[in-house]
Amino acid sequence: MSLTVVGSVALDSVKTPYGSVEKAFGGSATYASISSSYFTTPHIVGVVGNDYYNKFLELLSKRNVVTDGLISENGETFQWEGEYKDDMNDAITHDTRLNVFANFKPVIPEGYHKNNIVFLGNISPSLQLDVLKQSKQVKIKAADTMNFWISNSPKEIWKVVKNVNILFVNHHETLMLCEEQNINRAAAKLLATGLDYLIIKKGEFGVTLYSKNQIFCAPAYPLSNVMDPTGAGDCFAGGFLGYLSENMPVDFKKLKKACLYGTAMASFNIENFSVNNMLKINREKIEKRYNDLIRLCDTGDIK
Amino acid sequence: MSLTVVGSVALDSVKTPYGSVEKAFGGSATYASISSSYFTTPHIVGVVGNDYYNKFLELLSKRNVVTDGLISENGETFQWEGEYKDDMNDAITHDTRLNVFANFKPVIPEGYHKNNIVFLGNISPSLQLDVLKQSKQVKIKAADTMNFWISNSPKEIWKVVKNVNILFVNHHETLMLCEEQNINRAAAKLLATGLDYLIIKKGEFGVTLYSKNQIFCAPAYPLSNVMDPTGAGDCFAGGFLGYLSENMPVDFKKLKKACLYGTAMASFNIENFSVNNMLKINREKIEKRYNDLIRLCDTGDIK
Repeated sequence: MSLTVVGSVALDSVKTPYGSVEKAFGGSATYASISSSYFTTPHIVGVVGNDYYNKFLELLSKRNVVTDGLISENGETFQWEGEYKDDMNDAITHDTRLNVFANFKPVIPEGYHKNNIVFLGNISPSLQLDVLKQSKQVKIKAADTMNFWISNSPKEIWKVVKNVNILFVNHHETLMLCEEQNINRAAAKLLATGLDYLIIKKGEFGVTLYSKNQIFCAPAYPLSNVMDPTGAGDCFAGGFLGYLSENMPVDFKKLKKACLYGTAMASFNIENFSVNNMLKINREKIEKRYNDLIRLCDTGDIK
Repeated sequence: MSLTVVGSVALDSVKTPYGSVEKAFGGSATYASISSSYFTTPHIVGVVGNDYYNKFLELLSKRNVVTDGLISENGETFQWEGEYKDDMNDAITHDTRLNVFANFKPVIPEGYHKNNIVFLGNISPSLQLDVLKQSKQVKIKAADTMNFWISNSPKEIWKVVKNVNILFVNHHETLMLCEEQNINRAAAKLLATGLDYLIIKKGEFGVTLYSKNQIFCAPAYPLSNVMDPTGAGDCFAGGFLGYLSENMPVDFKKLKKACLYGTAMASFNIENFSVNNMLKINREKIEKRYNDLIRLCDTGDIK
């Protein structure tokens, strides 16, 4: 089985205290599809300008990403320019040029309908709803979102939440979306909509997985050098859903495993700019970090 | 065996979005000794004004705290007035009146010298060093500190770090003390001084325990209602060291257990103002939360 990934393809110009890149490949669909490619066959849906189409196809072919749903439009690829200061937790956006992304209308190709999971990366919730309409037969629908959409389209996000099985969302964005100060009350509000699983991303503090009646807290991988946090959340989602896609049906134990695989993938990504590290790793390295993560929070020996 | 607790005794006036208290018992020695009393016999060292001496003795007698090292001075007890706004993570100090605490010179009574652990609560690092001189024969020396001392007496804190076995410190204060942006590099700096164990407290994100070659990440207990976070760190330290004191010698497995007991104690404390909740609990309730915490991060089933 395999995974449909819908999201942005961007050229990111990023500056951090540890260096910078200019017009390097980024975007939620890019990170999520490359990350998931270590577990399953990702099928991307997105738009690229004709300025970078061939280069992007070349990049994705290295990871065997299916690109039938990737369209090229006349014009420039979506560009984002941002900076991370010392604490590396919040990006400061200097410039956003939507370019060909402004008119993006995702269309799921016929050949993708056999995929068992669809991931709605960080795009407008109205586009996410549009993809959901095209994905009725998909077993698991998962979505990510961010503060920009929470501020501008909260009603649409709640519609998305009610129509997906899995939601990925940052800690502070969860509080914002739910208008709560307490994260557990916020989680309860989201789960009350019918959502099956909620994954709250806490950056260097790991992730918390909530189901209706269980919670699992996974730590972040302890890194001494973080170069660029861009795409960490999408690499998490890619690893998480890539693993699940090949290990259906879902149960809580598999979701816990998925959390640790997602965490491992995010950790590789932030050690370098753009997708540089994500092209260099292998399954052996991933398994090593997965096992390290298991040890980091193992309570099996103190039961 | 048992525990010596040195620290402040205060009358706290605290306001949070969920209520307020006036001149309620607080202070690092108060919270740590009451918390540890569920595991061992705490021996307190501190100073109280004659305005509240009898009331305080009465309070501690409920938890069988040994008070030979508690002195009463003519004058008023140390008073702190603070407030927590919505996010409940940072206290805003409105007023601090040291009163009798201004001239506090901790003296460890002869009868405390059999105790196997000494906890240096949040007092000036020069006083902590003074207690360490009086505690040469104690097996385990543990200290806590905070931003005020890091800003004002960083050299003295590093001396404390070099002379204790266990350090408890908040996430942001660790970065501040080590002049680092990355928590794992900061932890490595602290451990390089010869410190055996470092416990980084991350509030609602749990704690991380570091030894020279192992890390354990413990989640916070997931509460939907936090009323007053004052004293959480001291209740953590009290539970942690109280458990260890009765379970010597120390190994990493016992330190992991200590982390979860400390976490359980902190969780009870923040559900109510002052030490209100800490007087109402029992070992059964503690064990229940301990077992919940084990399940929260258990990876034994996905190895």
